[in-house]
Amino acid sequence: MPDDERASRPGGRTARVRSEVLAAVDAELAEHGYDGLTIDAVATRSGVHRTTVYRRWKSVAGLLVDLLEAGADDSWEPADTGSLEGDLIAVNREIHAALTARPSVTQAVIAASFRTPEAADALTQFWIDRYERTAIVVRRAVDRGEIPPTTDAHQLLLTATAPLYHQLVLLRRPMTRASADEHARIAAASV
Amino acid sequence: MPDDERASRPGGRTARVRSEVLAAVDAELAEHGYDGLTIDAVATRSGVHRTTVYRRWKSVAGLLVDLLEAGADDSWEPADTGSLEGDLIAVNREIHAALTARPSVTQAVIAASFRTPEAADALTQFWIDRYERTAIVVRRAVDRGEIPPTTDAHQLLLTATAPLYHQLVLLRRPMTRASADEHARIAAASV
Repeated sequence: MPDDERASRPGGRTARVRSEVLAAVDAELAEHGYDGLTIDAVATRSGVHRTTVYRRWKSVAGLLVDLLEAGADDSWEPADTGSLEGDLIAVNREIHAALTARPSVTQAVIAASFRTPEAADALTQFWIDRYERTAIVVRRAVDRGEIPPTTDAHQLLLTATAPLYHQLVLLRRPMTRASADEHARIAAASV
Repeated sequence: MPDDERASRPGGRTARVRSEVLAAVDAELAEHGYDGLTIDAVATRSGVHRTTVYRRWKSVAGLLVDLLEAGADDSWEPADTGSLEGDLIAVNREIHAALTARPSVTQAVIAASFRTPEAADALTQFWIDRYERTAIVVRRAVDRGEIPPTTDAHQLLLTATAPLYHQLVLLRRPMTRASADEHARIAAASV
């Protein structure tokens, strides 16, 4: 089979290499953080030859960008709990868990975004995608007649989620899950 | 006059050197960002000998930490507009201006906090101080009978301010001043 054909086949060798390399990036990042992430360690852990990793991803930033882009490809969507408040609490619990995991891949990627413009751009794109998907929570609430159709979805989602990022990432202070729930309730009650 | 005595006199040579060096750090950071900040450039701009800067501040991180600590010493307090909503709008407008200034010293210091633990600790301490000072907005509203005495001041301030930091620093997306005002209104209405 010619290389081109194999490369484009979903689930083929190229897809498998990518998935193995990204799993290794995820694990290395979680164990050693951004500062400890190296292409050599990713190659060793994934079992993919280091020249292949260098040729395809070029740098540590390239690996992180691809990790985020692979995440944006996936089929994630917010849980449907039957109410706006319940849906926002579920979203906030996911964010709270991701930011307080020790180690936290999300925290490592945010740190990386302050080191390289490529990681910053990839993170912005990743979040645009995630906030767009999360807007379904607002559309469902509109459809149920819970909130007006004119509701600003992004403003509502920012009200719910921003306090978690600010407290846990920028202020670098603890936040309980109960407090994360409370910010979801404040947002739900704001419309 | 012995050096020790001179060093401890408020407004003396030591205080003047510190103020000149910190003004230079502020200007260099604003012009070139964290990546362009060097001790040599700070020494040249301030007119303070580079060996003095190296001896006293040791590193670029040391300069940033001192810049933040000097800021926390100052007499900043939130404007008293006569209402909780007005006070929160005034706070949010200050944050919005600081984060959207081009160049923004605040953005540069936040970026630095992801490079060195000293800058991260200094930023956390700086924000703890600022949020404590801003809590007077909540106490005044309690005294006026606008909100219950049991109001969680930090939760209220996070609801108002966090969306600005999340949107402008982490999501790296624009936010209008009108939208910053709106988040202050949402917070004021949440109690």
